[in-house]
Amino acid sequence: MTTQHIKTDDVKPVSENHVKIFDTTLRDGEQAPGFSMSTDAKLIVARTLSDLNVDIIEAGFAAASPGDAAAIRTIASEIEGPTIGSLARLNKNDIDAAAHAIEPAQQKRIHTFIGTSPLHRDAKLKMSKEEILKVISEIVAYASSACDDIEFSPEDAIRTEREFLLEAVEAAIEAGATTINIPDTVGYTTPEEITDLFRFLKENAKGADRAIFSVHCHDDLGMAVANSLAAVRGGARQIECAINGIGERAGNCSMEEAVMALATRRDFFNVSTQIDTTKIFAASTTLARVTHNPIPRNKAIVGKNAFAHEAGIHQHGVLANKRTYEIMDAEAVGMPSNSIVLGKHSGKHAVAARVKALGFNVSKQKIEDIFPAFKRLADTCREVTDADLVRIVTGNAETDGRIGPWRMRKTELHVNFEDETRPHARITMEHDNGERQSVTHEGEGPIDAAFAAVCAIADVPGHIHTLDLNHVAAEGIVRAEAVIEVEGKFYSGKSEEVDIADAAVASFVAAVNQAAAIRAGVSAEQERAAS
Amino acid sequence: MTTQHIKTDDVKPVSENHVKIFDTTLRDGEQAPGFSMSTDAKLIVARTLSDLNVDIIEAGFAAASPGDAAAIRTIASEIEGPTIGSLARLNKNDIDAAAHAIEPAQQKRIHTFIGTSPLHRDAKLKMSKEEILKVISEIVAYASSACDDIEFSPEDAIRTEREFLLEAVEAAIEAGATTINIPDTVGYTTPEEITDLFRFLKENAKGADRAIFSVHCHDDLGMAVANSLAAVRGGARQIECAINGIGERAGNCSMEEAVMALATRRDFFNVSTQIDTTKIFAASTTLARVTHNPIPRNKAIVGKNAFAHEAGIHQHGVLANKRTYEIMDAEAVGMPSNSIVLGKHSGKHAVAARVKALGFNVSKQKIEDIFPAFKRLADTCREVTDADLVRIVTGNAETDGRIGPWRMRKTELHVNFEDETRPHARITMEHDNGERQSVTHEGEGPIDAAFAAVCAIADVPGHIHTLDLNHVAAEGIVRAEAVIEVEGKFYSGKSEEVDIADAAVASFVAAVNQAAAIRAGVSAEQERAAS
Repeated sequence: MTTQHIKTDDVKPVSENHVKIFDTTLRDGEQAPGFSMSTDAKLIVARTLSDLNVDIIEAGFAAASPGDAAAIRTIASEIEGPTIGSLARLNKNDIDAAAHAIEPAQQKRIHTFIGTSPLHRDAKLKMSKEEILKVISEIVAYASSACDDIEFSPEDAIRTEREFLLEAVEAAIEAGATTINIPDTVGYTTPEEITDLFRFLKENAKGADRAIFSVHCHDDLGMAVANSLAAVRGGARQIECAINGIGERAGNCSMEEAVMALATRRDFFNVSTQIDTTKIFAASTTLARVTHNPIPRNKAIVGKNAFAHEAGIHQHGVLANKRTYEIMDAEAVGMPSNSIVLGKHSGKHAVAARVKALGFNVSKQKIEDIFPAFKRLADTCREVTDADLVRIVTGNAETDGRIGPWRMRKTELHVNFEDETRPHARITMEHDNGERQSVTHEGEGPIDAAFAAVCAIADVPGHIHTLDLNHVAAEGIVRAEAVIEVEGKFYSGKSEEVDIADAAVASFVAAVNQAAAIRAGVSAEQERAAS
Repeated sequence: MTTQHIKTDDVKPVSENHVKIFDTTLRDGEQAPGFSMSTDAKLIVARTLSDLNVDIIEAGFAAASPGDAAAIRTIASEIEGPTIGSLARLNKNDIDAAAHAIEPAQQKRIHTFIGTSPLHRDAKLKMSKEEILKVISEIVAYASSACDDIEFSPEDAIRTEREFLLEAVEAAIEAGATTINIPDTVGYTTPEEITDLFRFLKENAKGADRAIFSVHCHDDLGMAVANSLAAVRGGARQIECAINGIGERAGNCSMEEAVMALATRRDFFNVSTQIDTTKIFAASTTLARVTHNPIPRNKAIVGKNAFAHEAGIHQHGVLANKRTYEIMDAEAVGMPSNSIVLGKHSGKHAVAARVKALGFNVSKQKIEDIFPAFKRLADTCREVTDADLVRIVTGNAETDGRIGPWRMRKTELHVNFEDETRPHARITMEHDNGERQSVTHEGEGPIDAAFAAVCAIADVPGHIHTLDLNHVAAEGIVRAEAVIEVEGKFYSGKSEEVDIADAAVASFVAAVNQAAAIRAGVSAEQERAAS
């Protein structure tokens, strides 16, 4: 039930309880639509894989394109630690291309494959069983002469007849393969079936004791992680996986989920990996950034919600003993901390804890007094922010449920229209106290100028950190969410407007209001406490 | 291996092979941070659940807030078909609130729960085993007097001692519970363990034959779907799940994955559901829209990549026989179609198929001739669009790899700055042939006006469909992706610029270029064919 950081020196790589992590983020992951990476991007990801201490990095598929081959060679030259591998079809050209690409690496692997299922033999390869066995013997031997560390995969193994699969595996081991990978190419199997298959192969394949068995699962039916772990139960000692579970179609087994499941349930699996789990969050966010694919909120291990609690019952439990609703610590995967999110499902325990964290020293009665105002705001169906809470505690809650004291009244943008000045914007905002102000400001672009004008009016030294805009014409509105940085702290704001420019500015205003309220509320409280 | 649409009349709900789908999107799903829904939004989702033909909709937790209770009552009044349920803690107030909220429904269920694990008993409830058994007997009986259909959950069942769990389950059945749900509240278990637990309970609980056993899994270790299905192997006949797998922390078992796994692997599970699988994609996209949480590309069943193929080997296989890399049809879940995405991993088979689909009748030699140009463009690491392909086929490929013939030169925005005219924009664009044009246009907002000006210059009758912008200050760029509609067809464009306004307009220009190239290329080919 407890989670430990699995450090390198915790395990002996030669132990029969050591499960190798073969990361294919840069091969199977990268070949999925929308996840292509430049060589520079691949190198950034390879460095995070090295930080994680994965056993093997599959860096690409050398014969696929000159660009792919060059990227593998760069990674093989620059990355120390993990074994560097390349994929290769079962032919001499592909083996030669792979061998050349991985040549600069200290430790190298060639991973070669051929389809063995009836569908692959008949529809794609148009080869008989005998032809396939012959080419396995011939080409695996050829590859073994070029590289000591050879992995062989009978593609679509899960849909291959058991007896023929056995023959293919035996032929590969006999010809020199040291790792036998069993891919569920189409994401078709179930845990029960795959445990049984691995037991069958380990018990029946001649030479099974000379090879490490590996599993490669796809998530088409949502079972890639469970299937990979079930294979470990059946004797697999290598898991092929990818950060954030990227890969063909629904992706591969998620590295972070497989590793943390083995760590959290070490009592059940009785194996270990050499992964430094505290580097998981960094690896996940790095990959999301370089491929421009955000991590979904409800993603296991690394999603924004993975350690977040809004429901009152859960918050009460977590505040009493966090093991009631958490089986591992956010810190174990390198996330800043778990988080209690305040919303309509939250109870008094959570509100009191957050008010205290904001620096207020209030009585139990005060929490009772402010709770109805909190609930009214929360029932409007949004997250109650720290700014809202400050206004409630300091008695300024009952305005109109809007986030802050300033509202955007008018955004005027001006870009090189009738003269040659820099882009500038005039912003008009109105304060809750009736005050109205307009400021004109320059900037790199018109929206940038508008942000500067907002900061000048609100007297908050803020800068944009991130901005996300989503416009769906059928709904007629643009949704925006801005995160700003003010003296090292982050504040966010959301908006819905008709035009993109208005939405961007309104979300920025909301974030500035949030910052202003917290800064004012906390300093007023500090003054009260001091007097 | 084949997938069938599971229609209502396929199965007899009374059959012992019928697995009920209990959807908790609106309760466990809705209580996760970032997934709150208004009553209107809940009603929209409830309608899609009714279209899917789920057995039970858990519509909320009536005692949590007046808003929640009102939403349940609205759903109970408006939605026909599924049973409507409310969650309730094991006390009379909660039971009364639930009974009142579901009262208008034709078929109703109260789902009541109490923590049974040592952690929940000691840290959260501070109750002894005896006290818990007493309150189960008393309150389940009270609930049974108010409603025929009572579900009882021993919260954190997975971490509860087996003997005490058995006592709790027996007490609930004895007091009138007709469904016994076994929650893996913290997402801790594995398929092997949960199959065994369900077999134990089914075999040993007194009165087990009078209740339906249900499973409720969380995805903290990435195994919610596999665990739910493993429970079915152990005798469960109800799965609690949520659309897109939303829910506390890493979420619940994903409805679409569980349902499609049972359908695709009916040979193994030998059970069926009454879900109309062709409604899955609509339900998934509806939920994503109303909660503003996009579906990740690599999400199983419903993600953009779930049926997409870019790698040459996979494309070759799918074009020969799509079962080589697909175990179900996109149409079975209501998705428009599978898609071949052209990029650096694509081979000649896929290029030839796409060129043909675009309306060109070209020889094998022509594909050989254009393939190097295709590869050069693909190696710049992006998707090769239909517009690119048209330019390559028609011999205009070797410009500079930019998407289309028009480039944005200058975006000038003007909003109410020195006069009271409507927002307007002046756009200057330059064509590949050297031509330069400027147009001034009005619009609802400044960006809207800029889009209109772009369409006027390019002579394309386009309208914005969706626009996504992402700005990360640390990288100093704004990324935009626009989808436009031109006479019923959709085209997309991407851009990276320094300012938000420029990025929005540049992505719009790229989409317009794509539309213009395809329209021009295809009509030139039609002229050639006709002459």
